[in-house]
Amino acid sequence: MVETYSSTLLQRAVTELKKLPGIGEKTALRLALHLLNQPEEVAVSLGEAVTRLRKEVKYCKQCHNISDSDICAFCSDSKRNASIICVVEDIRDMLAIENTGQFTGKYHILGGLISPINGIGPDNLNISALVDRVKQQQIEEIILALPSTVDGDITNHYIYNCFKSTDIRISIIARGIPIGDELDYTDEVTLGRSIIMRQKYEGG
Amino acid sequence: MVETYSSTLLQRAVTELKKLPGIGEKTALRLALHLLNQPEEVAVSLGEAVTRLRKEVKYCKQCHNISDSDICAFCSDSKRNASIICVVEDIRDMLAIENTGQFTGKYHILGGLISPINGIGPDNLNISALVDRVKQQQIEEIILALPSTVDGDITNHYIYNCFKSTDIRISIIARGIPIGDELDYTDEVTLGRSIIMRQKYEGG
Repeated sequence: MVETYSSTLLQRAVTELKKLPGIGEKTALRLALHLLNQPEEVAVSLGEAVTRLRKEVKYCKQCHNISDSDICAFCSDSKRNASIICVVEDIRDMLAIENTGQFTGKYHILGGLISPINGIGPDNLNISALVDRVKQQQIEEIILALPSTVDGDITNHYIYNCFKSTDIRISIIARGIPIGDELDYTDEVTLGRSIIMRQKYEGG
Repeated sequence: MVETYSSTLLQRAVTELKKLPGIGEKTALRLALHLLNQPEEVAVSLGEAVTRLRKEVKYCKQCHNISDSDICAFCSDSKRNASIICVVEDIRDMLAIENTGQFTGKYHILGGLISPINGIGPDNLNISALVDRVKQQQIEEIILALPSTVDGDITNHYIYNCFKSTDIRISIIARGIPIGDELDYTDEVTLGRSIIMRQKYEGG
């Protein structure tokens, strides 16, 4: 349903809001009318924040995380273990891992995955930057934390090949049954893989 | 969950997006990262659209609809029946009725409902403007198309009392709408029927 509004300003705001993922006509209208009911600063702040984000954004020269400075807060944090790099697809995955509290090394953000179908090759990603970074720094381990998809597997394999002749340890996050899930609801591939990749049980 | 991002620009964009209704931390981050992956114009257009909407919005001097000019497109449309006014709570309800295609009169937007609990009285709404409008124009019928809620009932009653000593017909949209539901979530057939089947309002 495309509505015609009595105001071109409203029409334009709805059109722009609708371009955001997961926001349809009704939601866009609700958001626009909400902004009209708020003090002027709310809409002005929102407008300024999204414009400045896109115009002034910087990326960390080392890990390609979004950053205010040339080197991001993670990379410049001396308390983090600089000898382990966790390779992730994007910032959301980095934040997801960070939220677990289980990783205190550094990150490297690829900015996507190798995807032959979508015409995305290694040169479109921050892979050569990872190779350069590893050459310049004392890296002991690279953890591959990419999605368990075809593109993720291709990318894992490509990165593995970049480093297999070095003595850097390449590891991959465990794949298996999610904590709390029932076996009979787990798909066959995951379940089969969890049997092949079974680990020694220490009574924990 | 409140995350801390490595970029204050990203942090601010997420904070502002989170103020929108129905948008939480995760969705706000998804929207912000989506904007970063788009051409600069997308974020700039969005920022400008929401800012201009709020700063430059005008309301129709007659019906209080959002408008580009002093009198909105509905009020200045001579093909619409100027002797029937449909009273609605807000613009979304007006658009919902307009979408049924069952109403060709004019509208009057109250800008809310009388709500003693929330301290909203008749003076906070465009009710006296409705009374003035009816005095100045040849109005034969006022259709009350307010939500079927306690506040809606109070507001219906108040408006009825404003006009009960005149010979203007006061009608109310048929109670085919489920009690407690909002107009803009009602399907078009039900809502259209409720306009056709409108009944004389006796102040009940």
